[in-house]
Amino acid sequence: MRTNQYYLATLREISSDTENISHQLMLRSGMIYKVGSGLYSWLPTGLRVLKKIKNIIRNEMNKIGAIETLAPIIHPAELWEKSGRYTTYGQELFKLIDRRNKKFILSPTNEELITQMIYHKIHNHKKFPIHFYQISSKFRDEIRPRFGIIRAKEFIMKDSYSFHTNQRSLESTYNMMRKTYSAIFNRLHLNFFCLPAETGRIGGYISHEFQAYCNQKYEKISLNKKVSKNKIISSMNTDQLKLVEIKNKSELFKKFHIYKNKILKIILVHSSNKDIPYVGLALREDHMLDVNKAEELYLVQKPLKILNNNEIKAYFKIHVNYLGPINLKCPLIIDYYAVIMKNFISGANIDNKYFFGINWYRDIFVKYVADLRYTANQNIKNKNKDTHAYLKSIEIGHIFQLGTQYSKIASNMKKNYHECLLMGCYGIGVSRLIAAYIEQHHDSNGILWHQEITPFHVAIIPICIYKSEKVKKTSEKIYHQLCNHNVEVLFDDRLINPGIMFTDIELIGIPHILIISENNLKNATIEYKNRITGHISKIDAHHAADYVLKILKNF
Amino acid sequence: MRTNQYYLATLREISSDTENISHQLMLRSGMIYKVGSGLYSWLPTGLRVLKKIKNIIRNEMNKIGAIETLAPIIHPAELWEKSGRYTTYGQELFKLIDRRNKKFILSPTNEELITQMIYHKIHNHKKFPIHFYQISSKFRDEIRPRFGIIRAKEFIMKDSYSFHTNQRSLESTYNMMRKTYSAIFNRLHLNFFCLPAETGRIGGYISHEFQAYCNQKYEKISLNKKVSKNKIISSMNTDQLKLVEIKNKSELFKKFHIYKNKILKIILVHSSNKDIPYVGLALREDHMLDVNKAEELYLVQKPLKILNNNEIKAYFKIHVNYLGPINLKCPLIIDYYAVIMKNFISGANIDNKYFFGINWYRDIFVKYVADLRYTANQNIKNKNKDTHAYLKSIEIGHIFQLGTQYSKIASNMKKNYHECLLMGCYGIGVSRLIAAYIEQHHDSNGILWHQEITPFHVAIIPICIYKSEKVKKTSEKIYHQLCNHNVEVLFDDRLINPGIMFTDIELIGIPHILIISENNLKNATIEYKNRITGHISKIDAHHAADYVLKILKNF
Repeated sequence: MRTNQYYLATLREISSDTENISHQLMLRSGMIYKVGSGLYSWLPTGLRVLKKIKNIIRNEMNKIGAIETLAPIIHPAELWEKSGRYTTYGQELFKLIDRRNKKFILSPTNEELITQMIYHKIHNHKKFPIHFYQISSKFRDEIRPRFGIIRAKEFIMKDSYSFHTNQRSLESTYNMMRKTYSAIFNRLHLNFFCLPAETGRIGGYISHEFQAYCNQKYEKISLNKKVSKNKIISSMNTDQLKLVEIKNKSELFKKFHIYKNKILKIILVHSSNKDIPYVGLALREDHMLDVNKAEELYLVQKPLKILNNNEIKAYFKIHVNYLGPINLKCPLIIDYYAVIMKNFISGANIDNKYFFGINWYRDIFVKYVADLRYTANQNIKNKNKDTHAYLKSIEIGHIFQLGTQYSKIASNMKKNYHECLLMGCYGIGVSRLIAAYIEQHHDSNGILWHQEITPFHVAIIPICIYKSEKVKKTSEKIYHQLCNHNVEVLFDDRLINPGIMFTDIELIGIPHILIISENNLKNATIEYKNRITGHISKIDAHHAADYVLKILKNF
Repeated sequence: MRTNQYYLATLREISSDTENISHQLMLRSGMIYKVGSGLYSWLPTGLRVLKKIKNIIRNEMNKIGAIETLAPIIHPAELWEKSGRYTTYGQELFKLIDRRNKKFILSPTNEELITQMIYHKIHNHKKFPIHFYQISSKFRDEIRPRFGIIRAKEFIMKDSYSFHTNQRSLESTYNMMRKTYSAIFNRLHLNFFCLPAETGRIGGYISHEFQAYCNQKYEKISLNKKVSKNKIISSMNTDQLKLVEIKNKSELFKKFHIYKNKILKIILVHSSNKDIPYVGLALREDHMLDVNKAEELYLVQKPLKILNNNEIKAYFKIHVNYLGPINLKCPLIIDYYAVIMKNFISGANIDNKYFFGINWYRDIFVKYVADLRYTANQNIKNKNKDTHAYLKSIEIGHIFQLGTQYSKIASNMKKNYHECLLMGCYGIGVSRLIAAYIEQHHDSNGILWHQEITPFHVAIIPICIYKSEKVKKTSEKIYHQLCNHNVEVLFDDRLINPGIMFTDIELIGIPHILIISENNLKNATIEYKNRITGHISKIDAHHAADYVLKILKNF
């Protein structure tokens, strides 16, 4: 693609109402255009990325035998009235009427519709399990659309629905979907975690959500505190959570021979927020709380007021020894050293009971992380003034075991089909994935794309192409050679300052950049720049295309 | 794809409310599922075809440098209020409000939105002409949804918008789009025609629409009356229409030396319909009207009552000599011999004026075609009892030169950009194309797909696969060989009567069918059936895959 025949749409300035880096970069790099509050058009560069991500999802869904369909966006309201969600879904449901006053909704999700189809069309038990998916626009009347495409009125979702005649079959597909989602997010190079979740308005009894870290804060933790990315992600595959009866805390050491660094303790303090009386501070059993650090946290009352045993008994109804992070009745701030614990032990918030094999994210949602530990070296405290790190994350996927909730309703519709099918449903916020990716993969110059989802593989920047015949000839030759190998090339043939070309190409984030100048061509070389490493090397002008093809193959 | 892992969704029965063959066949072959009035889900087989058609359109649009984008479905109403269409578009516009009572519409088309973006984002004249397209769901609050996906509330449309700084540039793109649309419809093997059209609610000053014939009636004409398809389609490139002053009809013969078979005459008769007083019958000047045939037409009053000169003068305000098909104030029924005329001459419905170079479809919409001509051989009349052929057609594309209609409004939005851009807009009813295709390509057993858009290239029908190890082994081998060459194969591995398999495969319309049976394998052969020709041949079982690959290549 030649830039003159393309619509680059990059921006120098960004509007002041963009709160997060992905929103800023998507607007600046010309991926999206804001039509209205929570409404965006996909511009050519954004659409190229979106299509590639859709295809990765299709590819992984097809692998496990899910079948693609496409439902309408408008659903008759009667389907939603039957399930009860026409009212229970709340104000986020977009409703409309047609010219005959018939009621409709704009689909945020498809449980009712797909269940109806299954009951109308499939009368043979042998067809189950069956699993349908679709990738399409969904709608949510957000009270406050923000963060660009992350919280929008209209967004693109992959939703899928599986139907089963027994629980074992449902569980098998559910577990397969957890793996498939991990495979998809891994292919997108997303740093994510999976944890048990509330089922909310979708309903059902078992549910997990996938969250992608937002880069900035996460990077701070991982760089400052050496929390390796692998450690947190690996928490997905760990010990089982076990409830163990322990009469006395000392049994932990004496009977079970547990080291103190495997135990998490909770210290309860008064909150600075009127709506929340107390806040829990979680530290390793062998670490001491630094009162000064704790007092600087905005959720914590200053001066610090630690709850005594009686106060705990009164509010939490348990003995202080059995406090733990799971089902704790107050917000929890976790120390940097505690958040990297794996398979640890803590109270179960039930008298005489402990949990063994606890893991963050899988068993407890991590919201607040901070430096709480007392150290002899007081310099550390002053170095790290931003003491309250807020570990933001973006929900990118959600899977549910719905059981018979929807099929019960549908089976009433069609009386000759009595058995209640078990159902699972699985969603991915497709457009959100792009925002999550950019949150995690950018630098001060712009986005950093990986090869599988980059809008273009290679950019050609010719210096003074309209003055130098040699530059023009070489650029055109390399461009055609690469195009003939199905490499997606952006050939920047604009009559502008090369500096602007560099800025645009780096902002868009094309991973491989070729710079062709008269000066280098004198020595029969051109420059290759790797956008991610920043490394520049001179390469043989005659074999430039081969050089790039080799890199692309080995990526 | 193995049928057991697929969702075939074919139906034995069809509901009685399907009015046309494409609707019936799409439901029966499991391409679509009806969710509600004018609302359909695309099932796996339908979605496969839809995707291929989308890609053909993308391919042709990309060839002429149009750039793909994707607008949201919900548009802020204020954009439509500014253009005036929020009210003028009428009741077909779906309107909705969000939780804050802000007004929105569900997009039937995108002129306002794209124009706003152009004016906000493009400030450099050199970027023009620029042409954006998108393929997405569109909405129309139809008063009476019918004909399946042909007249639906929600449908898939390719809409595109070009912007120009001068009329010549607009015309050049407009003409290119006429060619591109023809290329797309030809690739889809559609029998279509293009004619000047009303601009309607879209606005603008020049417009053409593309109509696809509905097969049944058209075939009757072409077979019975030898109207070759090429003749009608070639009417696209013909003489210019000219208005010529002629004082006396005899001048035509004396001064211009015109043969009578190049002139069209109109005979006006009383109508059988109370709402329409008169009906025109169009014949070649050298042909005579058969009164008996005319009386059998349902629009014509029986006994036939031909208007005299005074009656014509009173109602049509012109002399009988200057009657013609263009701007005629009543419906027109065209004789089979008249409808195949090209570059012909007829009155202009203005006294002393004739049109030269008239062509059907381009200059006049053809709605009613019938056998009107008197012939000495009276047997013909009785043979053809169905005398009133109704040439139905489906609108599949529409192109407009809009001029400055929308850009005027947009330029007011952004004051620093004063020039009014000229605009063209171009639509294709993507989902409709499938219906139009099926109307033209089917037989009594089902759909007949061409290779480029068929849901599967090849079907494998193994006879008694669960009894014969030999059949199983051969089928699996051929299946894998074809899959390895990226051939899309439907392998019917269902444990059912082979008769049902045949019915399903022929209904779906897969063009190449391989039948593998124990009996034939004894002679090391299998059967190949061509769905379109119906021809069955025995082929070498060992080289079956190669045989099919060769056919697919030569298609």
